[in-house]
Amino acid sequence: MNHKGLFTDLYELTMAQSYLEHNKTGRAVFSLFVRKLPQNRNFLVSCGLEPLLEVLENFRFSEEDLKYLSSLRLFKGWFLDYLREYRFRSDLYAIPEGRIVFQKEPLLQVEGSLPDVQILETVIINIIHYNTLVASKAVRCHLASRGKMLIDFGLRRVHGLDAGLFSARACYIAGFAGTSNLYAGKRYSIPVFGTMAHSFIMVFEEEEEAFRAFAESFPDRTILLIDTYDTIEGAKKAVRLIKEGIRVVGVRIDSGDIEELSKEVRRIFDSEGFKEVKILASGGIDEWDIERWLSKGSPIDAFGVGTKLLTSADSPYLDIAYKLVEYEGKPKYKLSPGKATFPYKRQVVRHYRDGLMDHDEVVLYREGGLVEKVCEGGNLIKPLPSLKEIRELLMEELRSLPEEFKSLEKKREYNVIIAEA
Amino acid sequence: MNHKGLFTDLYELTMAQSYLEHNKTGRAVFSLFVRKLPQNRNFLVSCGLEPLLEVLENFRFSEEDLKYLSSLRLFKGWFLDYLREYRFRSDLYAIPEGRIVFQKEPLLQVEGSLPDVQILETVIINIIHYNTLVASKAVRCHLASRGKMLIDFGLRRVHGLDAGLFSARACYIAGFAGTSNLYAGKRYSIPVFGTMAHSFIMVFEEEEEAFRAFAESFPDRTILLIDTYDTIEGAKKAVRLIKEGIRVVGVRIDSGDIEELSKEVRRIFDSEGFKEVKILASGGIDEWDIERWLSKGSPIDAFGVGTKLLTSADSPYLDIAYKLVEYEGKPKYKLSPGKATFPYKRQVVRHYRDGLMDHDEVVLYREGGLVEKVCEGGNLIKPLPSLKEIRELLMEELRSLPEEFKSLEKKREYNVIIAEA
Repeated sequence: MNHKGLFTDLYELTMAQSYLEHNKTGRAVFSLFVRKLPQNRNFLVSCGLEPLLEVLENFRFSEEDLKYLSSLRLFKGWFLDYLREYRFRSDLYAIPEGRIVFQKEPLLQVEGSLPDVQILETVIINIIHYNTLVASKAVRCHLASRGKMLIDFGLRRVHGLDAGLFSARACYIAGFAGTSNLYAGKRYSIPVFGTMAHSFIMVFEEEEEAFRAFAESFPDRTILLIDTYDTIEGAKKAVRLIKEGIRVVGVRIDSGDIEELSKEVRRIFDSEGFKEVKILASGGIDEWDIERWLSKGSPIDAFGVGTKLLTSADSPYLDIAYKLVEYEGKPKYKLSPGKATFPYKRQVVRHYRDGLMDHDEVVLYREGGLVEKVCEGGNLIKPLPSLKEIRELLMEELRSLPEEFKSLEKKREYNVIIAEA
Repeated sequence: MNHKGLFTDLYELTMAQSYLEHNKTGRAVFSLFVRKLPQNRNFLVSCGLEPLLEVLENFRFSEEDLKYLSSLRLFKGWFLDYLREYRFRSDLYAIPEGRIVFQKEPLLQVEGSLPDVQILETVIINIIHYNTLVASKAVRCHLASRGKMLIDFGLRRVHGLDAGLFSARACYIAGFAGTSNLYAGKRYSIPVFGTMAHSFIMVFEEEEEAFRAFAESFPDRTILLIDTYDTIEGAKKAVRLIKEGIRVVGVRIDSGDIEELSKEVRRIFDSEGFKEVKILASGGIDEWDIERWLSKGSPIDAFGVGTKLLTSADSPYLDIAYKLVEYEGKPKYKLSPGKATFPYKRQVVRHYRDGLMDHDEVVLYREGGLVEKVCEGGNLIKPLPSLKEIRELLMEELRSLPEEFKSLEKKREYNVIIAEA
């Protein structure tokens, strides 16, 4: 679908019409920021700019959309004409994807004619919120994984299909080896991985027959699911196959006491000299499982992580807002309890001590800092970085993140100073 | 996009190729069910069949998709031909949308050639999972609302854009008056609602000026947001406008102690004789807030519910699975710890006592029960019910749900008996 204009809240359009009626078409700046980090998040990972720009490019209203809007009996003909001509044509400032960010920092700032930038509110929050949410959860798996392989297996229980695409991308940025999601594989050239389901095992008379069949079909990529009936027996059958000369890359354990089972299965393979057979664990895993198992010496080589990661189950949303901060050069802020905002377009200056992040200052906007100007008049100023570059940026960021913030547990709040205007 | 085939996990396709290579193309039945209800859910609402059928209709592989798959060097030419010709052509059995369902009940059963029904696993789980998740959360808001108006305001923080569409529909089924989501309004003819944002207030020099401007633009639908600076002062300004003859349908309170503020604001309007002015509450509301406020006599007329509802924040996923239960007429089940399944295609027979649900029996499939045959050979057998019919079915279901299960708190588990095969 090339017309994304209706992916918005009604009030964005009613406000825009009223702005135009009352000559409120001056230059406005809106700022997208997270008020407060959720529990168990010491930092966030900026993510979603590229998917957002794709949506903004398609943020248009078709004749069918306009007909629908007209049927609501709220909008005037001249306003529907405004929507018909609507194109994203504003300036956009962003903290690039892959950067580590904290509370109150402007992830995105949009500057343009007030109605033009108002009506983007819903879609901007939607896309940046989910992408940042998942990248910030995925990086916790990365931190827990001690260099072991991580794969996104979450498409089946993520909320909707496009979230599946966003999350595969966010996980890759956060250091995952790849995804099971073929559409994400195609769309973003992310490596794809997969094993077999329990149904595959169950359809054959004998488990071993299923193993043989799969190995025959995919001799170079055989990962056997061994927990359908009895994990230990499954491992022993894998051993028999290897002894016959069948190549088994690895085995997957999806249920039971994975810590204990992984150790036993490892012993079975090692005692036969098959040290190269990998163990992949899956089944409702999150970063806490990964950390606990690895800290107890579980010999797991790879983790398939899904549901809890892609729904960010422990904190399924961020306290994120898109707020007017400046209009016609004047400061704008609100005083609502717990929701106070700070005015003006801003820059984030990061201060380091001994090569590690020490504190950030959110100052009035000027060039030089985390915030970069990305679009002018709706057009990209320079090409976006590749997914690999974004991933590398995040890995570099992690190297300058103090150890205490790499903990899965919430430590102290990172110091973000809001400079007075 | 008309080709949804790649919205799947890699392993669905590798398994399908191996099935075809090993003549495992017999008739298979897969069953979709929730193993265990999450915390704070006494029941679930079946939801998502219509959106799923739309996806299944488009579950095809384009030449571009096939080119991508070919590039993976996993698939054989004849298998890509199979995918090129792939159409949904299986039988589908479902518990209709709007029905109250419980653990272990087959929400959906798909019967067809094994590879044909295997490759639908990911997309079937994805769509039914999220729709059922949100409908089951939304109905809790409905139960707490005591007939007050509910509106879905969640598009901005739902996970992705298509989840926003699904959730607006699920909320409407669960008794909501409507949504802020324009695309859902157009696509499903759901009533749309909206007020104004804080930015609208802030852009004018004076709050009152903003109120006047909006009332001028939308004289019949003026709901004033009164908490930008001071809620009580905001209410007093609304009173002044009404005295001048401006029509104010209602006011919205989005922050602060909403219980206390709603009472004070009500007193302000009532003391002036403006009893018809409605109070709309919003801002991170969930079903617990609604119940608490209303039980304390808060005079709130309508609730805008968003983030916590659409992310199902207290339980952001269901323990849902799509499992092989029958192959070539033979029973199939697995024994994995905590994940045991039961074989054969099934019917759900509901038993009532004094007009109230007493227990369900999950028996071998026969006609007559909650499960209906929906598609034969991929084609709909009869037209789907309208959204209003689905909503009415759910309201009827709620009338026969025992009171203890209508509580927001988890009571006892409803009795579901799995008949032996």
